[in-house]
Amino acid sequence: MARPFNFNPGPATLPESVLKQVQQELLDYQGRGLSVMEMSHRSEAFLEIAANAERDLRALLNLSSDYTVLFLQGGAKGQNAAVPLNLLGNRTTIDFVHTGHWSKNSIEEAKKYAQVHLAASAESSGFYHVPPQSEWQMSDNPAYLHICANETITGVEYSFTPKVSSVPLVADMSSNFLSREIEVNRFGLIYAGAQKNVGPAGVTIVIVKNDLLDRALPICPSIWHYATQKKHEWMLNTPPTFAIYVSGLVFAWLRREGGLAAMEKRNQEKADRLYALLDRGDFYRGKVHKKSRSRMNVTFDLPNETLTGLFVEEAKENGLINLKGHKISGGIRASIYNAMPIEGVDALIAFMEAFEKKNG
Amino acid sequence: MARPFNFNPGPATLPESVLKQVQQELLDYQGRGLSVMEMSHRSEAFLEIAANAERDLRALLNLSSDYTVLFLQGGAKGQNAAVPLNLLGNRTTIDFVHTGHWSKNSIEEAKKYAQVHLAASAESSGFYHVPPQSEWQMSDNPAYLHICANETITGVEYSFTPKVSSVPLVADMSSNFLSREIEVNRFGLIYAGAQKNVGPAGVTIVIVKNDLLDRALPICPSIWHYATQKKHEWMLNTPPTFAIYVSGLVFAWLRREGGLAAMEKRNQEKADRLYALLDRGDFYRGKVHKKSRSRMNVTFDLPNETLTGLFVEEAKENGLINLKGHKISGGIRASIYNAMPIEGVDALIAFMEAFEKKNG
Repeated sequence: MARPFNFNPGPATLPESVLKQVQQELLDYQGRGLSVMEMSHRSEAFLEIAANAERDLRALLNLSSDYTVLFLQGGAKGQNAAVPLNLLGNRTTIDFVHTGHWSKNSIEEAKKYAQVHLAASAESSGFYHVPPQSEWQMSDNPAYLHICANETITGVEYSFTPKVSSVPLVADMSSNFLSREIEVNRFGLIYAGAQKNVGPAGVTIVIVKNDLLDRALPICPSIWHYATQKKHEWMLNTPPTFAIYVSGLVFAWLRREGGLAAMEKRNQEKADRLYALLDRGDFYRGKVHKKSRSRMNVTFDLPNETLTGLFVEEAKENGLINLKGHKISGGIRASIYNAMPIEGVDALIAFMEAFEKKNG
Repeated sequence: MARPFNFNPGPATLPESVLKQVQQELLDYQGRGLSVMEMSHRSEAFLEIAANAERDLRALLNLSSDYTVLFLQGGAKGQNAAVPLNLLGNRTTIDFVHTGHWSKNSIEEAKKYAQVHLAASAESSGFYHVPPQSEWQMSDNPAYLHICANETITGVEYSFTPKVSSVPLVADMSSNFLSREIEVNRFGLIYAGAQKNVGPAGVTIVIVKNDLLDRALPICPSIWHYATQKKHEWMLNTPPTFAIYVSGLVFAWLRREGGLAAMEKRNQEKADRLYALLDRGDFYRGKVHKKSRSRMNVTFDLPNETLTGLFVEEAKENGLINLKGHKISGGIRASIYNAMPIEGVDALIAFMEAFEKKNG
């Protein structure tokens, strides 16, 4: 079948050139006669794959030696436990900014290990905005402040990097990691499941400032113990080798495409074109406050549910798939991560214009 | 390059027919125009992959509805934490049989959450045997008894299923899972990283008796909380979709090959042929007690380290790769999991005979 444009929120579309390379090398990685899946994680060939992946990721982020990169398992939901277990130290409270479903998830998991203080909440808007930092009220002595940089379900994204003095800033960047330039130096810790902008599901990236590696709780499981994993160069146990290999190919692709500055420009352009259409009339209605619109997940409603269903159906027939919104928020969601080409967005816009003409 | 026989201890060789199917479907899964890596875990296509994988695994094990199957993340080392966090309940002690490196790993991790009692230890033999059950001394009221069914480094395997009344039996089966018939009903819980007999690294299989699902500690991370994952049909969060897809193809391959009875016969035959060679003379010397010889990892020494190095080198030139023993135990290790064809073992035997003739 012809390759459709896949607007999945994650696992998500991958660069076609990466998939072709994976396919070509699947049974015989660079003349070795075996698949990457069949290689020992301690083999020379895989260690080179791993080192290249880490090198390219560090280069993309222009990462200083103050930060450690770890490729772990368990997804962002795993890190919702691992972060408190590593960073709580002798403090008792964690501050959160609550912007929707994924912050809520992090909050609930953190309650297993700490007291939670809400520095701010987007509840007043039904979670359709990011509370401006001027409204945040921190607790007295939190272990850290946690934000979710992009909420995939509603399509809400930070347009700013919070300035937090003295308290480590932690960000769940699962759904916008590597989609734009990141001021890593402003963060104590960043984590991201790979399956949006980076690679296949099954690998979780953690970037942590080295001076935070001394405060893990004794109950922290070894595979998530950052200091231990750093010591073992994130191979305390067998890592998800194939997922890391594919992610490494995506990092190399991102560098070839011009790095994060180029991706930021392209992603902004893709989002701008879609939001411009939403702003042109009343048929498609975005619910997110303009300042907090996600560049990754563009959400909007149609006049009624019948039209929403018809939209999803007809879009699919036109090679534009997986546009149905999350059941929590309904409507339509177009996820336009790094690997969604601008042609995909233009095809969606052309379809939307035709659909409006017919049904508006 | 011609496909060599790959004796890796894990990640390990996979069935060539499975790899070919993966390659063929890589960009276009069954006419859908996208890769399995790009599919939502909630999509109809992936839910079918997942259901088939679980169905085939249950069929292979002839599993009753008293048991829950979970496909999780974090490897066996993750389960070394997850098992105590799920099964400790209000008890304080866990009993272990210590047979080597991997039991030691489980013991050390369990100490974070519980008191550890050694019911038996193989230390007297340098960890080259499984202590017979008649020698085991259990503690008074343990939460469960933990064994490692196969120690990959020394090549030591249980030839019997322990009979434990009243206390749940837990087994780390990472390196012999699905390699023979398993009396699952004798176990409370079985876990296994996939990367030996089952599939690529990155997916961890847990089989747990339903009546053990009510004793998790409040600090258990959600992604490892068995009752929660059961409720969410092991998709509380995005599972490692591609690794599950490949594992599912291996399950289907195992069924086509005749299931676990056929694999048991074939694996026994492979091991018997190699051990018969070890028993024929003094050039190759197995160190494991005969009753505890692993059918998965056949370990032996050569007369000196120069010959060991030469053996590994010349074997590689003959298309027999990754035979070097683990640094802890030295010598040679031939890992002959399910996907190693008997032709690979025969080729190794022919090489060993020629090598002995030349250097013996």
